[in-house]
Amino acid sequence: MTQTQPSPVKVNVRLGENSYGKAEVNLMKVNRSADRHELRELTVRVAMTGAFDAAHVQGDNTDLLATDTVRNTIYGLAKEGFTASPEAFGKELLAHFIQTGPRVTGGFAEFTEYQWERLQPGGQAHDHAFSRQMLRRTARVESAGGQFAVTSGFENLHVLKTTQSGWAGYLLNERFTTLPETHERVMATNITAKWEYQPGDVEYDAVWQQVTQQVVETFTDHYSPSMQHTLYLLGQAVLTRCPAISRIWFRMPNIHHLQYNLERFGLDNKLEIFHVDPEPYGLMEGWVERV
Amino acid sequence: MTQTQPSPVKVNVRLGENSYGKAEVNLMKVNRSADRHELRELTVRVAMTGAFDAAHVQGDNTDLLATDTVRNTIYGLAKEGFTASPEAFGKELLAHFIQTGPRVTGGFAEFTEYQWERLQPGGQAHDHAFSRQMLRRTARVESAGGQFAVTSGFENLHVLKTTQSGWAGYLLNERFTTLPETHERVMATNITAKWEYQPGDVEYDAVWQQVTQQVVETFTDHYSPSMQHTLYLLGQAVLTRCPAISRIWFRMPNIHHLQYNLERFGLDNKLEIFHVDPEPYGLMEGWVERV
Amino acid sequence: MTQTQPSPVKVNVRLGENSYGKAEVNLMKVNRSADRHELRELTVRVAMTGAFDAAHVQGDNTDLLATDTVRNTIYGLAKEGFTASPEAFGKELLAHFIQTGPRVTGGFAEFTEYQWERLQPGGQAHDHAFSRQMLRRTARVESAGGQFAVTSGFENLHVLKTTQSGWAGYLLNERFTTLPETHERVMATNITAKWEYQPGDVEYDAVWQQVTQQVVETFTDHYSPSMQHTLYLLGQAVLTRCPAISRIWFRMPNIHHLQYNLERFGLDNKLEIFHVDPEPYGLMEGWVERV
Amino acid sequence: MTQTQPSPVKVNVRLGENSYGKAEVNLMKVNRSADRHELRELTVRVAMTGAFDAAHVQGDNTDLLATDTVRNTIYGLAKEGFTASPEAFGKELLAHFIQTGPRVTGGFAEFTEYQWERLQPGGQAHDHAFSRQMLRRTARVESAGGQFAVTSGFENLHVLKTTQSGWAGYLLNERFTTLPETHERVMATNITAKWEYQPGDVEYDAVWQQVTQQVVETFTDHYSPSMQHTLYLLGQAVLTRCPAISRIWFRMPNIHHLQYNLERFGLDNKLEIFHVDPEPYGLMEGWVERV
Repeated sequence: MTQTQPSPVKVNVRLGENSYGKAEVNLMKVNRSADRHELRELTVRVAMTGAFDAAHVQGDNTDLLATDTVRNTIYGLAKEGFTASPEAFGKELLAHFIQTGPRVTGGFAEFTEYQWERLQPGGQAHDHAFSRQMLRRTARVESAGGQFAVTSGFENLHVLKTTQSGWAGYLLNERFTTLPETHERVMATNITAKWEYQPGDVEYDAVWQQVTQQVVETFTDHYSPSMQHTLYLLGQAVLTRCPAISRIWFRMPNIHHLQYNLERFGLDNKLEIFHVDPEPYGLMEGWVERV
Repeated sequence: MTQTQPSPVKVNVRLGENSYGKAEVNLMKVNRSADRHELRELTVRVAMTGAFDAAHVQGDNTDLLATDTVRNTIYGLAKEGFTASPEAFGKELLAHFIQTGPRVTGGFAEFTEYQWERLQPGGQAHDHAFSRQMLRRTARVESAGGQFAVTSGFENLHVLKTTQSGWAGYLLNERFTTLPETHERVMATNITAKWEYQPGDVEYDAVWQQVTQQVVETFTDHYSPSMQHTLYLLGQAVLTRCPAISRIWFRMPNIHHLQYNLERFGLDNKLEIFHVDPEPYGLMEGWVERV
Repeated sequence: MTQTQPSPVKVNVRLGENSYGKAEVNLMKVNRSADRHELRELTVRVAMTGAFDAAHVQGDNTDLLATDTVRNTIYGLAKEGFTASPEAFGKELLAHFIQTGPRVTGGFAEFTEYQWERLQPGGQAHDHAFSRQMLRRTARVESAGGQFAVTSGFENLHVLKTTQSGWAGYLLNERFTTLPETHERVMATNITAKWEYQPGDVEYDAVWQQVTQQVVETFTDHYSPSMQHTLYLLGQAVLTRCPAISRIWFRMPNIHHLQYNLERFGLDNKLEIFHVDPEPYGLMEGWVERV
Repeated sequence: MTQTQPSPVKVNVRLGENSYGKAEVNLMKVNRSADRHELRELTVRVAMTGAFDAAHVQGDNTDLLATDTVRNTIYGLAKEGFTASPEAFGKELLAHFIQTGPRVTGGFAEFTEYQWERLQPGGQAHDHAFSRQMLRRTARVESAGGQFAVTSGFENLHVLKTTQSGWAGYLLNERFTTLPETHERVMATNITAKWEYQPGDVEYDAVWQQVTQQVVETFTDHYSPSMQHTLYLLGQAVLTRCPAISRIWFRMPNIHHLQYNLERFGLDNKLEIFHVDPEPYGLMEGWVERV
């Protein structure tokens, strides 16, 4: 052991909020019970909470579940479980760890699900061949005090409108404000969403389909005076369509498409030629909730 | 100027093959001439070759085009040019730089084109709203000796088959070989392709659609005894369908889906529960050519 | 405007917690007042909170600061401000936006600071040449209710010990547990840390140096029976050394170095040849606090 | 088997240049023979070339080495081999596969080596604790026709000078040229280099140290009128210092640090406040060779 300096008297400290588990467990489950195969692919993180003071403070691992065990368990339980949604699988996992781990009292499970679409050779959906999509589904299940709290979501919905968007009427008479108003621009964003549920049973897969479909519909159906207003309209439309959802959150970067200055070269540029600027970006985040 | 050491006598050296230009120029062009808007988005690199010895050796920049000028030019020429494919735009760009740069004699232009699909709210393709896809188109145009050489391609076609694939009959009796044979497995890959053309005019956009469509069809239509054989069949099918292509290259990682060992837990696992292993991966690369 | 379906009656909703601002503003400030130049490079996000209901609900942007203005302001205030730490700069920024934005009442500023070390040609620290390091500093300042809350941290401290670590004494007699105990292994992690402060003035730059130095020292000075215990010892040592810190949090992935099974080939492997497995990884997170 | 369309008559094709093998094999080797441990970490790709027509054309895998065997072999040979440089290890690997694989006639091995520095608690280099660095070493060994061709290199040397650089004297009177000349700017780049050797034995590790050291020294020792000239001076200095090297190539992006326009706000900005623009970037590539 290396001694690097005379050890000072240690101050009194304690362990605060903590968790441990396994992250980035890549799981695929294939259902071959019919000719038309089904598959689901998840990246899983499970974190456990509980009475872990001895391990942290004294280095005493008694009764701890190894994170390797967490990995084995995720694959093992997926065999007979994981017959429905990631959300339901999350509840199965957490219930198992709370029951099995002598010191485990709660925890959370987080999922990223890759979307695989059937390939369509000759225009027909194939029985056993698939391609991965950009859009990813997310889910988080937390167990605390004997209750499950479920959050669902998606990420990487990269969408754009070439018209029907502007930004005007904001504070103009300010030292650092140089941006001119506009009523016509390209509006682009990469939407992340998450939502919580009303009490009661939920058909998580069906709701997820409804939300993503509604977000696409609402994104296209209005003139947008700001990313903020569109964010609100998305939330309002989802809550209207999906009674099971109590509130929804969006993260919407404003991916700026800057008209390139071509006048310097004797060319006009009427919203035709853009520099797609990766940074910086406006960033809007917000919840929309039922009253 | 900092002098860090007595400067040794410099050896005789010369400038070898070299180029300079601008990379990662993010360009979007929107066509609003009809109610149904069209858009294309490219990331562009242009590199020029020529008589650049004075700049490198003596630090004499006379007659050099600035890379900032390259950027301006890409956006400027996109305004009246870039009416067809990235490949055609690449020729326009290189011809321009060769004509304009007193020292420029050739170069290359490389493109990554993002695919934007129309959103389909209510099932109908929208006039001005789009979502970005995973699959990316690529193109490279090189100018040397007054000739253009064109390579087209795609990347990020992430596909998978849950059956109709195996790996058997290989060298088994070898010290480091432990893998058992199989005639049933999951086969997954993320395909990169590039191809070259026969002499003559080419409809680049149409060919690109044909290739990607054919790759999907052939990927699904056979039992695959190896990624290598599938690679060959993909090439053969593309060359059959597309007379304009002279040869085609594929890069096909074998993304291993490992059956998780559940027997240890008293569970069977008949190709149902997999660890999707990101590394290492088998990697197959090869050209398929006309005889 | 596209109408995709008969519009249902909208349910009653309201705007919940929300913010907007600019993200990924890349800023470098160079101080040339002496021959020995100094520089700092930050990626900045500023998010404002306040009375933004009209913008979200009615699409009324009156009195809103544009996110473009946020960007201009970050660069503008950096000119005469940003003379000390990112934490102090964050306070300057937030105070400015609260004062300037008629609807702004609070917000937060987040920073990632790249570490640039002086190059050392001939062994001597150079006056104006630098190289970027892996380790990144982070800071977050939040303003709410007229108070600032400051969190500081670092990320990407990628460290490893080839001995003096093990994992034993945990729950073994469990269905999914197959991992054998060990008292000798490679322990590797990529540490993320963040900490909060006691009331009073803080020399943020000095504390940051102390924390990173102490983490390196403590990481090396003990036999580690678990990542959890090392996490706790790191926290205890930092709190002992830095009276200004009230509590500290670590995120410590256990990057598994798996002894490759060479016995199959008639070779032994006494902790010599490892597969560095990028996934999955154990993941430990926790706070250590003053009592 | 899915039949998607009447199968057209296949055209005559043949297999062109091809290879297969294993990529992203993450290997660490620890030497514990003394109290002061040593370690090296490599990411390895091995690709084999040879008589692979039967596998590709007929789906006949006879006598093929599995890519899983390639992986096993890399770890297996590392046990008694890999006692010197990655370059020497590459030769061992390729010689083995050519000897062992009945159809293998050549191939290449590519390496990325992570640099681990000893931690220095209390200012003293530690015996068994290390931290990973940004700079990465690369190597490539190719075997063809019974000969080895070796290329060595590095990547991710991210350096910057706050002065002693400019860009002037270039072509100004041109339609798309708007950039003003400057004799004072920030010059930043992230250097990738690779080099080839003169015939004869080489101490690869020693040369690598010399090259990286010389690049840092030369980067700092001159006024740079262009990235191109600096590229040339780097090459000249390395070839002067390292007689074993026959030629060297650099890839040097010009990471633009744009003076932010603060005059609009009544502030001057004398090379003090910069927008570090990630894209686009100037990109210079070139070889410097012995005459």
